[in-house]
Amino acid sequence: MLNIYDVLEKFSSKLLQSAVDEFVKLPGIGRKTALRLVLHLLRSNISDIECFTGAINDLCKNVVYCKTCHNISEKDECDFCASPRRDKSLVCVVEDLRDVIAIENTGQYNGMYHVLGGIISPIDGIGPDDLHIASLVRRVEQHDTQEIILALNTTMEGDTTNFYIFRKLQHTGVKFSAIARGIAIGDEIEYADEVTLGRSILHRTPYQNQLTSVKRL
Amino acid sequence: MLNIYDVLEKFSSKLLQSAVDEFVKLPGIGRKTALRLVLHLLRSNISDIECFTGAINDLCKNVVYCKTCHNISEKDECDFCASPRRDKSLVCVVEDLRDVIAIENTGQYNGMYHVLGGIISPIDGIGPDDLHIASLVRRVEQHDTQEIILALNTTMEGDTTNFYIFRKLQHTGVKFSAIARGIAIGDEIEYADEVTLGRSILHRTPYQNQLTSVKRL
Repeated sequence: MLNIYDVLEKFSSKLLQSAVDEFVKLPGIGRKTALRLVLHLLRSNISDIECFTGAINDLCKNVVYCKTCHNISEKDECDFCASPRRDKSLVCVVEDLRDVIAIENTGQYNGMYHVLGGIISPIDGIGPDDLHIASLVRRVEQHDTQEIILALNTTMEGDTTNFYIFRKLQHTGVKFSAIARGIAIGDEIEYADEVTLGRSILHRTPYQNQLTSVKRL
Repeated sequence: MLNIYDVLEKFSSKLLQSAVDEFVKLPGIGRKTALRLVLHLLRSNISDIECFTGAINDLCKNVVYCKTCHNISEKDECDFCASPRRDKSLVCVVEDLRDVIAIENTGQYNGMYHVLGGIISPIDGIGPDDLHIASLVRRVEQHDTQEIILALNTTMEGDTTNFYIFRKLQHTGVKFSAIARGIAIGDEIEYADEVTLGRSILHRTPYQNQLTSVKRL
């Protein structure tokens, strides 16, 4: 049986094949989806195509990152860091902008962020020096940070990165916390995985705390 | 609750927002996926970005379509139309290149194609004149075409397009056929939808035919 690539190569154009190849490099885009997206673009006007590629080029060439927290911004200082209303003593360490958006969506957090730009992952060739960890250490040493909230995903790489940051900042005496792990609200205990359920029993919280959080919701 | 756009607008850059906007225009790409793709591109090298946007620009500006069947090609005549081994008396009418690939993958068809470039869809503003129907009529009138195989999707729009082509070509006396509809091989009859099952009983085929197709598989 021929696959998409064989057919593209055998009967169609190399231009099409290389455009599909480029789309396949994006995360979560397989060959069939890539071909679908490319054919959609092919049917658009040239001006629409130029808008599409122009917006990407513009972003990648002219993007500005906040000097303090490395969030994507329009100025040297992002709105989080510039805001006088936000609590500067709390710094939440996240992997990228998507996590900032997720946490902002909760409306429960009013501190600062520190965007690492990734997590330590030797398989992908990402070491601590590729992330914004040095600037986090400087930030904690030079400013009045009371607490670091670690909010990385619970994967092997996330745990490694958390521990690395903890070791790097241990000497400053700053308080460390990690976001709570447990059974999601609305989930059934019967279907929870053993690791999560086990930890949620080990790290149980006083019932009174849960009452207040229900009231806030 | 803020959505992604509110957060992007409130705290982040317009460049990012416009790149996300462009990705959202692609079919099957929602806001979250678009943001994920854009952040992936942002982490790439500038040279990789230029490869990505360059491949798309190249394709859309320099793409060549086969003059006869409108398939995407590298020359004025695609390999299907140029091949002496393929049966020129059979023309299979399809919507776009993806259908050509799907049919080629079966290895059961050795005729020609005619790529319409879409289907009649008044809601999307696509009329018969936007499709390659006039050239199909010319092709059948001028060349020795024996049979037209209609292989469009079974939607309201597909049926309309089929009927339009049928009316346009009726005077030529060419034989018309449509790909067989019925219960897919391996599917359970119990779970088949009523329309398909009803039609598959109405348009039942001699059992001997199925025996030969089993042998070929």
